[in-house]
Amino acid sequence: MGQKNNKRVTIYDLAKELNVSPSTVSRALKDHTSIGQETTKAVKALAKQRGYRPNVLASNLRNQHSNTIGVLVPWVNRPFISTLISGIEESAQRAGYNVLIAQTQDSYETEVTNTKALVDSRVQALIVSLAMETTDYSHFNDAVRQGTPVVFVDRVPMNYRGNQVMIDNYQTGYDATQYLIDRGRKRIALFSGSLKQKIYRDRYDGYVAALRNNGIPIDESLIGNSHRLSIEEGTALIAGMLKLSVPPDAVFSTNDSAAIGAMKYVKSVGKRIPEDVAFIGMNDDPMCTIITPNLTSMSHPAAEMGRLALRQALEIITQPDAETNTAITVRLNTKVVPRASS
Amino acid sequence: MGQKNNKRVTIYDLAKELNVSPSTVSRALKDHTSIGQETTKAVKALAKQRGYRPNVLASNLRNQHSNTIGVLVPWVNRPFISTLISGIEESAQRAGYNVLIAQTQDSYETEVTNTKALVDSRVQALIVSLAMETTDYSHFNDAVRQGTPVVFVDRVPMNYRGNQVMIDNYQTGYDATQYLIDRGRKRIALFSGSLKQKIYRDRYDGYVAALRNNGIPIDESLIGNSHRLSIEEGTALIAGMLKLSVPPDAVFSTNDSAAIGAMKYVKSVGKRIPEDVAFIGMNDDPMCTIITPNLTSMSHPAAEMGRLALRQALEIITQPDAETNTAITVRLNTKVVPRASS
Repeated sequence: MGQKNNKRVTIYDLAKELNVSPSTVSRALKDHTSIGQETTKAVKALAKQRGYRPNVLASNLRNQHSNTIGVLVPWVNRPFISTLISGIEESAQRAGYNVLIAQTQDSYETEVTNTKALVDSRVQALIVSLAMETTDYSHFNDAVRQGTPVVFVDRVPMNYRGNQVMIDNYQTGYDATQYLIDRGRKRIALFSGSLKQKIYRDRYDGYVAALRNNGIPIDESLIGNSHRLSIEEGTALIAGMLKLSVPPDAVFSTNDSAAIGAMKYVKSVGKRIPEDVAFIGMNDDPMCTIITPNLTSMSHPAAEMGRLALRQALEIITQPDAETNTAITVRLNTKVVPRASS
Repeated sequence: MGQKNNKRVTIYDLAKELNVSPSTVSRALKDHTSIGQETTKAVKALAKQRGYRPNVLASNLRNQHSNTIGVLVPWVNRPFISTLISGIEESAQRAGYNVLIAQTQDSYETEVTNTKALVDSRVQALIVSLAMETTDYSHFNDAVRQGTPVVFVDRVPMNYRGNQVMIDNYQTGYDATQYLIDRGRKRIALFSGSLKQKIYRDRYDGYVAALRNNGIPIDESLIGNSHRLSIEEGTALIAGMLKLSVPPDAVFSTNDSAAIGAMKYVKSVGKRIPEDVAFIGMNDDPMCTIITPNLTSMSHPAAEMGRLALRQALEIITQPDAETNTAITVRLNTKVVPRASS
């Protein structure tokens, strides 16, 4: 396996070696009926031996079919995102498409650069979950203008009317909060991502509505904003809130990582879960059943979300002339997965 | 953000609209000195307004520079793999390269397909960690033959002499086993991946050597082979071994997930960790400090591995004429990260 940049074998090389015309080689490789069986066999054998591969770039320039879907996500290692990717991949594979992935690490700049890289690599559609920082969407307008349709998934733009698949974030926030209220909690903290992101804004609205409808006042000191909702940030948020004169008796964290960081801290200072502080997370990551006590969470239909996003992308690819205004918004339901933490 | 496949804006469109020649547009976009400042400004303004982007495919055909590196890994969601990817991305970004990722889900067939997809998308080099199933490497030979150099990382081919970065798997297996022996354990189980994969074969060899050098007999019933070393497979392996007439008093698992699955099972049947069964995992995943008791593990310099693999890739890209026989094998050291599970 030499590492040299050897020259790509072309149809012309094969033609020369077989002493036939390049068009004969081209037709033989496509099983054209005008070429005899013997010749076709000889051409294919040599093509295989020399490692010939069709010049996909050149043919892409003509027919634009790379049979590849691009997926752009904040982090590939978040469990629900990797499940989402698997959902996309399984459906893509069945439809004969490959999936190329890029991650933004929640950075707007990396999102812009990687959107371009995926468009330039000639993916036929993009499935995108926004970076936490992103509030300007013009790089996706550029992609669409260049013929690469975009389907948003999970973290979708504010006030967007194009194709998108998400969970019902408002209802999820409402249900998680109501679950804690039903267990007698009154000082319920919220761990939120950036409220400039629609999904966190919707969950926040659901949290506020549940408190209001139960006559519980909103206390800004119990609302924690986090850049990445990481384990470390969860630890820092709860450490601050436990210093309040009336600390929280429950936490609704809008992901599981931050909840787990907070649970580790609560245990380390000798407080009990759920007696002193109850917890509910979101996404139902595998971590929920690893920590003691197991973490109550909200289910996340990530694989289904991936399948539906891919289906939308394929519909746009295969029916490019369909009206723009047929764009679909899909909202999936979630439910409480009750465990010992609340 | 309409979803139609609008036609890509070309240099010819801009030329027509500005009533200048296409070559003037092309030169203006490249800041050619032969074009006046006013014209250059007008061309660039219109290009921006119309969403013009250079036809990278066509220019790739000429100069082969996509400034993109392809990364092909078994699973993007394994913590050490996502750390590896971050290591690659950080170095790539600094060098002006983008990173496109594809996952094989440990399937040989998907590895073949995705290798082609990445080569066809014109990445300038591939960084590859093999699928568990892979024992035939000819699809990588094809990639190299077509001018896409390959650097292997972590899961590398058997008997390979090309560019590769890995940990010292033999020593890691030896040290993990010795650590358990030093704590008085004599019935040490091994949870291994496929022994057709060099990394698992090397860890196995290290395990066997440590037992032998300490006068402990090898017991085949304590060697568990696993397809994916998942949490569920770890549970199944320990459940079987606990039924032995003399069950294991310790487990060396060649990843953390399988160790954690086994720990959950051991706790669920009322046995104590580490008193009844001690555990040591591998990779030092974040899960290790989430489970109770915390899991002892072997460190994995995944970010450093990613940086070094990218450096090798860039050297091949920028010095394509260097001799093939200068290929480098890098072996990184690991160490025990002691915790309460052993």
